[in-house]
Amino acid sequence: MFKSIVLPAALPVLLLGVAGHAVADEGQWQPHQLPQLKSELKRIGITMPAEKLADLSKHPMSAIVSLGGCSASFVSPDGLVVTNHHCGYGSIQRNSTPEKNYIVDGFLARTRAEELPGGPNALVYVTEKVENVTDRVLKDLGASMSGRERNEAISSRIKALIAECETDKAYRCSVPAFHRGLEYYRIRQLMIRDVRLVYAPSDKIGNFGGDIDNYEWPRQTGDYTFLRAYVGPDGRPADPSPNNVPYKSKDFLVVSAEGLKNGDPILLAGYPGRTSRYKLPSEIRFARDVDLPGKVATIQADLDVIAAATKGNAAWDVRYASVAKSLNNVMKKSQGLLDGFARKDIASIKDVQDAEFRSWYARSANGSGSGKTLLGDLDAVIAADMALSREEGAYGEATHSDLLKSARTLYRLAQERQKPDAQRETGYQERDLSFIKARLTRLEQSFVPNVDRARWAAALTRYAKIDQKLRPQGLDALVPNAGNLDGFYKGTELADTAKRLAWMGQDVQAFRASKDPFIQLAVRLNDVATKLDERRKEVDGNLDRTIPQYMSAVIAYRKSQGKPVYPDANSTLRVTYGTVAPYSPRDGLVKGPFTTVEGIVEKETDKDPFLVPATLKKAVLEKRYGVFKDPVLNTVPVNFLSSADTTGGNSGSAVMNKRGELVGLNFDSTYESITKDWYFDTAITRAIHVDIRYMLWVMKEVDGADNLLKEMTIKYPKK
Amino acid sequence: MFKSIVLPAALPVLLLGVAGHAVADEGQWQPHQLPQLKSELKRIGITMPAEKLADLSKHPMSAIVSLGGCSASFVSPDGLVVTNHHCGYGSIQRNSTPEKNYIVDGFLARTRAEELPGGPNALVYVTEKVENVTDRVLKDLGASMSGRERNEAISSRIKALIAECETDKAYRCSVPAFHRGLEYYRIRQLMIRDVRLVYAPSDKIGNFGGDIDNYEWPRQTGDYTFLRAYVGPDGRPADPSPNNVPYKSKDFLVVSAEGLKNGDPILLAGYPGRTSRYKLPSEIRFARDVDLPGKVATIQADLDVIAAATKGNAAWDVRYASVAKSLNNVMKKSQGLLDGFARKDIASIKDVQDAEFRSWYARSANGSGSGKTLLGDLDAVIAADMALSREEGAYGEATHSDLLKSARTLYRLAQERQKPDAQRETGYQERDLSFIKARLTRLEQSFVPNVDRARWAAALTRYAKIDQKLRPQGLDALVPNAGNLDGFYKGTELADTAKRLAWMGQDVQAFRASKDPFIQLAVRLNDVATKLDERRKEVDGNLDRTIPQYMSAVIAYRKSQGKPVYPDANSTLRVTYGTVAPYSPRDGLVKGPFTTVEGIVEKETDKDPFLVPATLKKAVLEKRYGVFKDPVLNTVPVNFLSSADTTGGNSGSAVMNKRGELVGLNFDSTYESITKDWYFDTAITRAIHVDIRYMLWVMKEVDGADNLLKEMTIKYPKK
Repeated sequence: MFKSIVLPAALPVLLLGVAGHAVADEGQWQPHQLPQLKSELKRIGITMPAEKLADLSKHPMSAIVSLGGCSASFVSPDGLVVTNHHCGYGSIQRNSTPEKNYIVDGFLARTRAEELPGGPNALVYVTEKVENVTDRVLKDLGASMSGRERNEAISSRIKALIAECETDKAYRCSVPAFHRGLEYYRIRQLMIRDVRLVYAPSDKIGNFGGDIDNYEWPRQTGDYTFLRAYVGPDGRPADPSPNNVPYKSKDFLVVSAEGLKNGDPILLAGYPGRTSRYKLPSEIRFARDVDLPGKVATIQADLDVIAAATKGNAAWDVRYASVAKSLNNVMKKSQGLLDGFARKDIASIKDVQDAEFRSWYARSANGSGSGKTLLGDLDAVIAADMALSREEGAYGEATHSDLLKSARTLYRLAQERQKPDAQRETGYQERDLSFIKARLTRLEQSFVPNVDRARWAAALTRYAKIDQKLRPQGLDALVPNAGNLDGFYKGTELADTAKRLAWMGQDVQAFRASKDPFIQLAVRLNDVATKLDERRKEVDGNLDRTIPQYMSAVIAYRKSQGKPVYPDANSTLRVTYGTVAPYSPRDGLVKGPFTTVEGIVEKETDKDPFLVPATLKKAVLEKRYGVFKDPVLNTVPVNFLSSADTTGGNSGSAVMNKRGELVGLNFDSTYESITKDWYFDTAITRAIHVDIRYMLWVMKEVDGADNLLKEMTIKYPKK
Repeated sequence: MFKSIVLPAALPVLLLGVAGHAVADEGQWQPHQLPQLKSELKRIGITMPAEKLADLSKHPMSAIVSLGGCSASFVSPDGLVVTNHHCGYGSIQRNSTPEKNYIVDGFLARTRAEELPGGPNALVYVTEKVENVTDRVLKDLGASMSGRERNEAISSRIKALIAECETDKAYRCSVPAFHRGLEYYRIRQLMIRDVRLVYAPSDKIGNFGGDIDNYEWPRQTGDYTFLRAYVGPDGRPADPSPNNVPYKSKDFLVVSAEGLKNGDPILLAGYPGRTSRYKLPSEIRFARDVDLPGKVATIQADLDVIAAATKGNAAWDVRYASVAKSLNNVMKKSQGLLDGFARKDIASIKDVQDAEFRSWYARSANGSGSGKTLLGDLDAVIAADMALSREEGAYGEATHSDLLKSARTLYRLAQERQKPDAQRETGYQERDLSFIKARLTRLEQSFVPNVDRARWAAALTRYAKIDQKLRPQGLDALVPNAGNLDGFYKGTELADTAKRLAWMGQDVQAFRASKDPFIQLAVRLNDVATKLDERRKEVDGNLDRTIPQYMSAVIAYRKSQGKPVYPDANSTLRVTYGTVAPYSPRDGLVKGPFTTVEGIVEKETDKDPFLVPATLKKAVLEKRYGVFKDPVLNTVPVNFLSSADTTGGNSGSAVMNKRGELVGLNFDSTYESITKDWYFDTAITRAIHVDIRYMLWVMKEVDGADNLLKEMTIKYPKK
């Protein structure tokens, strides 16, 4: 056992940290940027060489994978993957039945043979190559091109770059824009499509606190799950098959049970989804004053309709549970953004930064002459973007039916299939078909005609109240009356999954000839939708021309101040760093940085989401902490806060100590941090992580997952 | 200016404290006990000799005064007194008019001549002498006496002791019981009855946070007010008169603007009202399971009735505002107790302690033979007490009308006045008449017939639902029907203050002959009320015989463990000590120990109680901290938490540093601390204090009270 410092209670511990370290660290860095940050990493105490983090082919970066929307990491040489419980939830759910309820009871495969299929949505992406292809995307684009022409040209070059990369079907490639279109990188990822469920704790552990604690601290959630990547006997990705073998993950993370204390440095690697850090003040004001309030009102109305329509029908309620959960999540995030904007005048902070930049820009060589034009263009292009997005919002309300959206997708697919594959719109190419099919199939799990009708009717009523000028031209004549939707649901066959999927093979003529009212409406909507699409391309093309010039100037400006610049998150592999740190949400109050197993028992009620497994409670009450007892807290830590820079998509990201060993899993951030997607406020931004010691403790004391504890390489504290 | 340590934000500061000191210190000690605690005081860092705190005639104890319900202290040689804003509230209110609203605008007398009369309820009590009179109260009480006989004998001896002490009319004496009747002390207090209002900040400062923040942390309340004690030209207490002169307070507290930091020791002196630390487990269970839930339900019902009855009538609403405020306060405290009991099983903790004690008692010499009898008696006597208190509760419901209660007081007074003064019941002697008159007069400020009728009707309805066995015998026949009260309010003249007071001079015959329905009912209730009183005396007499034996054994038991024992609070002068310390109300959360002026601006809204005076806000935004800037927090602290042991009555208590200099004023405790009256949980019990630096800062930067800053002796930080 390691040396234990006896303290009277958990409290004083929180006061021991080295305050000087408690500074949040902004930046979701591309791995190749890390050597530029050498001295910063050293300053906070990272001992692993920055160069190691830049090499995707080597440990530890080669162990960091994407699940498509979530992050994860390999933790054994046999393809064992650890991620969040909420990231593996779909796989747990699809294997659960009322008799074998793995959600409630948890699941543990004690042998490889017991591992369960993760389902078609369970995919592991291993990033193997990242190339800068900016030149190939942007070179020699005519200055006189319209926005739409420019957008289509870029799109076409990207499709070619992808096609060239995907000749080996084992790979999935993408060419995302960085710095709002200033740079483009081609990412090549091995896509493993046989992924199995290995171990998930009960949701009493994995989802402890549920929606109530979502975005909240204090938090005591054991949000972890184990999957395993399988490949064909030849070692290459293959469709799910009993003949497949575990993927040989040559690199994997060593797990450290030595733990962290307040002030310790951390590294965090994963696939953050989307941030808006470089938005202009006008864009922030539009989000704050128009977009988000509208979104909150719309989602709240939609949630109310769902609640009313499913009330008293348990089966319907279950169908819409995940829809409501995800709407609630967006809602809480949007409301959190509004609260954050109200608390801190981020637009004004950006005004000051923007004015400084503009003044520098006017003085700098770049700014002379063309500078004025650039900044003028910028404002006009952004104004056009904001105006168009309001019409798109109105279109969204008018077409807020899952069946209508399916019909639109299907008709669009039929139209695109008339073209050669390379010329089809992104999202409708051959490579996209399996994803379209999966989406159209999945609808059956979360759809009830009566509820869909109620949601659409309510949305149509909201649409009717939108200012005439903000509705797309021609749309009014096409939308049905909110009180007159019965015919749609009586006359359609699209609610039937097989019939819905059958339309994937139909041609345009078949759609035009169809008597299905949803198909008919989808066809009739085509002109309006196409016009919106074309206007979007025009606006995006203009944004693509103007914003990168602006970003280039911003980067030059920041470089002139000695500050490296990271691009906004775009679901590509990033590394961030920070320290274990508490924060003060309000005067006189400090949150974190640790919670403990005692906090679980403290929060226990007799109702979900605060149920506590009896074995866990017993272990806590008996103080069976074992080797996982923190020497300062004197108990097992559950969750902890760090100042690292994360966002959605970082769920499941590896949290590593200064040596690159796994010490935690990222799974959430605090309510006060929600505005970080727009402005990173170092004082209050904190990410929430599962302490790996809690995970290991549950595996040992509660779930008896000794086979996995044995499979991983775990560094225990020195005795 | 003193050395300033630059830190990036307020947060890290809260993490710097010396954790080892953050232990709460139980004990409301009689000053004479302090020399026994010498080593404890030294351990936490108090440098002032313990002996000095034991001498009431010397600084600093001679500067600690009571306002009757609140605590205060002299801060100049000219009778200047500092206490809480909420303790001086009555005086501020009675001087306010719609034109000169001192509540909202604050009040500052720049000269003595501008000081305003505090009113008849503004009194300053200076404790001059404390004598142990246990022998004189308890000596030779016959063992065969009934409970009632014993109670009356003790009462009569106490009255004699008081009468003997009050021959000098400048003094008010009392003989409270200590250790539940094991000891009695006679307290002689100089009663100064010309007390004037000197300075009160706006209630935006003095009551910032209002009822919403009552019992809460984080807190930013400037809960302070200045009064001045005046005496006749001969230096002796006198009725209010323009000829009076400031009282020469030979001792007064020096004010230290040097401030405290986390972990620093404090001394706190004042007049705590009532605690229940030595209750038996059965008494706790009765409070938890019967008394408090009943109280909460009754008060909530009463509050609902008041709200409904005053709704839409602003004048009535104002009349009942203070009634509702005080009911809300009791309610929050009662609910806090219930929450605390639910959070921590205090009864079971006491069970364990009680079992240990009983086992020690059985083994000890005292316990042989008589021990069994004592512990047996104890349980029986307490059971009788609990049973009687339920009947008293039922009586309270049946008579829940302010007019009926006044009528009962008046009739009782007439009865008592038939006896020689020395034989009258406590509370009805000549010395009590001015207090009775003040109470009967004050009713006019908080009474409306319609509301009183509604409250009584509702209480009668509740009474009707009480189990028959728990209602006093004979009462049912006397109480009116809840629906039939109009006659009472039409027929009474008691609602008129002059007519109500006139009854103070009437004899018993006049009451019996009266046609006033409330007087008639008061007369009719006499037998039932007298019987309850007599049964109360019997129970109390038995408690007075049994409990002190128990307490004596408990004290012996604790002494055998080397622990000194302090008596429960009883509104007498006490000293407690502790350290500036944060606490953790829940896993992952730390509160305190400081709030700052920035927190005021953070909480500002456009509605009471979160309005912020413009001058204050400006000073904060301009960071005009001056000499009051804390070197660690880097701003002006507003409130702070300490581990000192306080309760109601400690409002306004001086918080002193290790040298006995004034550094704060006690004014509240945290919600989690409410259970401390029953069980002192060192981990979570915290008192809330105004930091004296905030008071001085407001006086200087906001209110310009330079005359008072000059009058006080203030030690500023070294430059």
